[in-house]
Order: sequence, then C-alpha cells, then structure tokens
Amino acid sequence: MSAEIICVGTELLLGDILNSNSQYLARELADLGIPHYYQTVVGDNPERLQQVLAIASERSELLIFTGGLGPTPDDLTTEAIADFFGVPLIEQAEIIEDIAKKFAQRGRQMVSSNYKQALIPKGATILPNLRGTAPGIMWQPRPNLTILTFPGVPAEMHQMWKETAVPYLKTQGWGQEIIYSRTLKFWGIGESTLAEKVASFLELDNPTVAPYAGKGQVRLRISARASTEAEAQKLIEPVAEQLQQIGGADYFGVNEDTLASVVGQLLNEADETLGVAESCTGGGLGSMLTDISGSSNYFLGGVMAYDNSVKASVLGVNSSDLYTVGAVSKPVAMQMAAGVRSLLSSSWGLSITGIAGPSGGTETKPVGLVYIGLAKPDGTVECFKYQLGQNRSRSSIRQISACHALDQLRRSLLSRA
Amino acid sequence: MSAEIICVGTELLLGDILNSNSQYLARELADLGIPHYYQTVVGDNPERLQQVLAIASERSELLIFTGGLGPTPDDLTTEAIADFFGVPLIEQAEIIEDIAKKFAQRGRQMVSSNYKQALIPKGATILPNLRGTAPGIMWQPRPNLTILTFPGVPAEMHQMWKETAVPYLKTQGWGQEIIYSRTLKFWGIGESTLAEKVASFLELDNPTVAPYAGKGQVRLRISARASTEAEAQKLIEPVAEQLQQIGGADYFGVNEDTLASVVGQLLNEADETLGVAESCTGGGLGSMLTDISGSSNYFLGGVMAYDNSVKASVLGVNSSDLYTVGAVSKPVAMQMAAGVRSLLSSSWGLSITGIAGPSGGTETKPVGLVYIGLAKPDGTVECFKYQLGQNRSRSSIRQISACHALDQLRRSLLSRA
Repeated sequence: MSAEIICVGTELLLGDILNSNSQYLARELADLGIPHYYQTVVGDNPERLQQVLAIASERSELLIFTGGLGPTPDDLTTEAIADFFGVPLIEQAEIIEDIAKKFAQRGRQMVSSNYKQALIPKGATILPNLRGTAPGIMWQPRPNLTILTFPGVPAEMHQMWKETAVPYLKTQGWGQEIIYSRTLKFWGIGESTLAEKVASFLELDNPTVAPYAGKGQVRLRISARASTEAEAQKLIEPVAEQLQQIGGADYFGVNEDTLASVVGQLLNEADETLGVAESCTGGGLGSMLTDISGSSNYFLGGVMAYDNSVKASVLGVNSSDLYTVGAVSKPVAMQMAAGVRSLLSSSWGLSITGIAGPSGGTETKPVGLVYIGLAKPDGTVECFKYQLGQNRSRSSIRQISACHALDQLRRSLLSRA
Repeated sequence: MSAEIICVGTELLLGDILNSNSQYLARELADLGIPHYYQTVVGDNPERLQQVLAIASERSELLIFTGGLGPTPDDLTTEAIADFFGVPLIEQAEIIEDIAKKFAQRGRQMVSSNYKQALIPKGATILPNLRGTAPGIMWQPRPNLTILTFPGVPAEMHQMWKETAVPYLKTQGWGQEIIYSRTLKFWGIGESTLAEKVASFLELDNPTVAPYAGKGQVRLRISARASTEAEAQKLIEPVAEQLQQIGGADYFGVNEDTLASVVGQLLNEADETLGVAESCTGGGLGSMLTDISGSSNYFLGGVMAYDNSVKASVLGVNSSDLYTVGAVSKPVAMQMAAGVRSLLSSSWGLSITGIAGPSGGTETKPVGLVYIGLAKPDGTVECFKYQLGQNRSRSSIRQISACHALDQLRRSLLSRA
C-alpha cells in the first residue's frame, strides 16, 4: 500500500514556481508512516494528465493530486480524472452556495466560470476548502484506489489536508503506524558546529536525529516510529532533553516556536512591554513580532527611522553623532533603543541600524554591518555588533538582523530569570 | 522532441529537502525553448528508477537526471541506467585522477568508495564537475535518446548545466528556438474576472497568454516562441499593449515589478516622500517599501502604532475617537495618515488599521475589516475600507492590507499625472 503525489500545473513545468506542495505532502506522508515512491509533475493537459494517472493507478493505491482546480479553462484536473474513469461530473448545489457566500463576503459577484468548480465526479465526496473557492474531492473510483485532489494554493491545501484528508485516510486504514517528530530550534550556532557537538545522536535509529539549516536558524528533527503518539514521545523525550542541554542558550524553542513567539512568551511572563526602532529593517522586526496573534499584550509599537531626520526628530538621536560617526554606529543604535523606549514608555527598547546593501557599503562600513541596541527596564543600554558578510542578499541581511535583535532580547530576558 | 526531468533521492520522498533542481532545470529548458512535459521524483532504488526510465524513454528524447552520483552505497543512478540498457560500466582513469587531485587540494585522502564515481557506461562521455567530485555523463544509449546525469548538489549542477550540458545540447540541435516571456501584473481585480475580460487572448497560440493568481495579485504571462529575442518581443508587444489597456488602472507593472517598486518609481519621478503609520500590519508595509534598494530616496520612515497609546501620543490621534468609534475606523485611519505626514514632514502619509485576526473580530467589526488612510501633498485625506473576508489567515490579511495601501497610493499618484 503506497501513495503517490501528482502535481498539475504548467507553471511548474515552466519553472515559474517552486514545488513546495510536493515537499509538504512528502513530509506529511512520512509523518503518517505512509510510504510513497514516486512524485510526478505534469502540465495542464488532459491527455498527459490521464497518461500519468494510468501509470500511477497501476502502481499506487493512494493518488494525491494538487493544482488545476481553479475557475479558468486551463484548470482541468477534476474533469480529466472523471473522464479517465468514465464517470460523469455532477454539479453540487452546496459548492455553488459556498462559493457565492465567499464572494459575497468579499463584496464581489460570482462569475459564470466559478460554476465549473462545483462539478465533481459522480460518487465522489467533496473535500471542503475553507479558505478558497476551489474544493477538492475524496474518491474511490474502484476498489483499492483512493484519489484526493487539492488546489495548488499552499495555504488552502495545508488546511484541507490536515483537517479533512488526514482524518479520512485514518478511517480508511492508512497511517496506522505513526512517525512522530519534534523539531528543536537553535539560534547563534552554525549547522556544522552543532552537528559535531551532537554527532553521536545522528547515528541513532529510533528516534532518528537529523540537522537542517536555513536563514541563520539551525534545527534538529527528532523522529520516532511507534504505534501511539505517547510511545513515540517516550522515545523522543530523553533525546530532546540531552540535545537541549547540549544546545545551551543557543536552543530557543520547539516545533512551531519562532524567536518572536518565544520573546513574546517571555515578555508576557514578565508582564513587560516592548518598543522597537528600525532603520535598515524598515518595519521587518515589528512585522515579525506582530505576526504572532496576541502580540498586542506586550508589543506597543515602534518607529521606522529610515531617514536620519526621523532618527533625530522622533527618536531624539543626537544629530552630531549622525554626522560624525554615522547612522550605522554603536552610539546611534543605543540612542535609537533608548529613544523608542522613552517615546513609547515601554519596558524594553530594541533597535537595529545597519547596511543591508547591495549598495551603500564602504571599506570601514561594509554591507552586512549591523548594530543592535537594547534598552533595558533598568534604563541601561547595551549594543551588539554583527558582521553578516557581503555575500548575503539584501533581504537575507534584513531578515537575519531582525532575528539577531530578537535573539539578544531573548537572551537578556532569560538571563534575569 | 521533448525533455523530461528525473530527480533521484529518497530525501526528496521524505520531504527533507525542497526540489529546487526541478525548478532550475524547468526554467532553463523554458528559456532554451526545449519543451518538457513531465517531472518525476523517485527514490534511491534501482528497480523503481529503471521503471521510471522505461516510461520516460518511451515518451521523451532527452532525459535529465539529478542525484544519486555520490560515493555512498545508496548512490546508484549511473549503475541503474547502464544496467537498464545492458551496457557495462568502465572505470575512467581521468576521473580517478581528478578526484584524487581534488582530495589532495583539501588535504584529504581519496577513499575506496570514491572509485565508484569513476565508473561510467561504455560509450558515454564524461560531463565534468568542476566544483565537486561526482562527474555526470552525456550519453546516447540509442538513436534519438540522450541522457544527461548531474549530481544533486545545486551549485555543482548549475555550473555543469551552463558550461557543459547546454553547449553540448546545442550541437545536438536542441534549444535552437527560444521561448521569451513577459508577465503583466494586476491588483484590484480577481483572477476569474480578469480571465473573462481577456478570454479571447487565452486561446492564442503564439504568443500564449496564461493567468496566474496568488495573494491578491493576478498575473498574465505572455510567452512567445521565436528564433531570436527581438522576434519574440515583436510577437509579445501588441498583445501586451492590448492586455494592459484592458486591465486599465488595475494593471500596475511588468516582470519583476512589485507594488512597492512601482510606488517608489512614481514617488521618485514626483520627487516626493512618504511616511507610513501601521497598526495591524505592524511594520509589514514599511518592510515591503524598504525591501527595494534605493527606497531611502523617498521613504522617510513611519510609526508602528500597534497600541492605542502610540496612536494617540505619537501620531496625535484623538483619544475620544479611539474610545468611541474604536481604533479600526475611518476617523482613526485618517488621523493616523495625517499624523505621520505631519510628524515626518513627508509629502504623503499612508496608514493601515484593521483586524487581522484570528481573534478580535466582532459582529460589526469582523476579522478582515481594514481601513486605509491616505494623506496627500495638498493636505487632504482620503479613506478606503476593505472587507477581506473572515477565512483568510492572519498573515494573508496583513500582507493583502499592505498591498491595498500601496495600491491606493499608486492610483492616487497616477491620477494626478
């Protein structure tokens, strides 16, 4: 019994988009312990889609399609599948109702092409789409063959997979032995350094431990095979504890935790507030913080002090410092942090000033030079200097700078405990 | 004559890595005008790899493999391919020499498993790897079938593709005709509505026109086949002009343009500046604006007025309005925009206040309700109300709100011209 992933979309063949849906589904299937041996990408072409379907249905028992459920003429996944099995499409009144409702909510009119999305093969069950207009199907066109279809939009697909498809598959006997994973997250240590520190764990069999890295963050994924989640957790727990200990202060969280969410928890526990002052990140730090629902409990706001005039007039940075040592400097970072803390009457003030590039670097202040200022509840101010390297992209320097700022606040919050 | 991409690697089936190699090769094939209709991922398993090879060699004339060329026992791509065609593997002295040299450069000793990488099918040509130890092959195992193999490491594969494989393919008659594309971008119109308006264009053969949508933005991609870029542009130009005209004010840019970059160009041309005041987006609008290198020419900065106290104390929003009509309201949006314009002495002030959810919605102010305020150079202030629907995620509401704000500024900048 194995599954197979089939992604439909000419944009994938043209290289316009990265196939993140395959990776998402592959990881989900692995977590459910459902083997899968093939992934296929095919364009919006009914004959070729049916050729792929013919091959896949001979070698796998669960076919997962993504893409091609939209309202335009090139969206033809459902039609091609029904046609392959010689089954007519039936218009579902409840889908039309649902689409009309969603359009109404957005103050728009449903157009005739949307009716196409209400057609599903006779005998198939609707796989509802809560976020978008295109529903999928769950269908057994013949014994020992299950077909699931999802739209290509990742957010819609993920929600449909988790909330409808997985419970359905479990009732069908799929995914009985589970693989349960826990991901430990680290900031401030490189992947190879961490991998060396935990080398003996990478040899384990159950649970397995695997390192991943990206955008300055390193993760260790601990995966255990077991018949229940409790059993898997029992295997994972001691390993996680040891890895966490080895990571020390570089370990910051688990699974869905982000630096912003961890800082938020710590601020909540301390009943303290935060204000930020951003130059090169221009709002990116505030955006990370407010990405967390409930951040209004501790995040008051801040100032995007992109132009020097704003640093001086709104944050009270000394104009002569801006002139003599420049905006990307220790004194300015510290005054920005102290300035926003005072302006907003927040417990903490956190600032970033740096050179994100690609232009604007000099010999003494190269692209990637970043100063983080941290004004603390006791009124003292600290400064941290980073040299992020000149080969990183503008967006990567901005993103990593904001994470370093959050990380310094995290370490400072923790060190008081 | 078409190509097919086959990526070999169990790590892809486990979802451990994103398949960026497929996207890279897909884009390269599109640029070379080499059609390709299928992509397959298969694990490090010789029987299944040969099954995929059997299918692919029946329907395509150029098979491009990535992955499975390393020194470990699970790297078996070359062996499985040779075995499929019944051809012996021959050890190549020049590969062993090359690997030994590379190991010496890194101060390491070649180990016995590396000898495996020197085996290539009899009759195949070495596809040299300048960056790593694993070479690929270029091989015609039978007439009208060409096989290329590459290691899975993206940087090695890219270099080998560009410097060796592409010139080789051109001598074989591949890639003579190119496909050139232009993408037109629209904001403020749905995919299905735009698709209906341009329905007749979607039937064209050369150039083709295809709609894509995501995160509130709709794109039309115009792709022309021709023997030179100039010729392709000549085919694209009249179609692009007509589509642009149909799009009207909803059309905002082309190819790499973003709403933020287009607004930046318009502000630069007008020699005007911008300040922003953000509540629910918490810095996301500023972050989009400063993602553009050179934005310091027109973007002064802004205020993340997340907490009401900041709206009142820093932006001068009337406290009784915050109390009576609430932070998510027309008067507050307008006062935020006017407030930041005055605080920063900018030409324009742009504000966002809304309910990003998932909590915080009420019957009269549901999740997804967003007000955009726009304070203009002449001192007048406008307000725009959006109802983004309650099914969207927090991050999607925040992202779309920031785009709507940029779009309103764009329309206002354009309407003066």
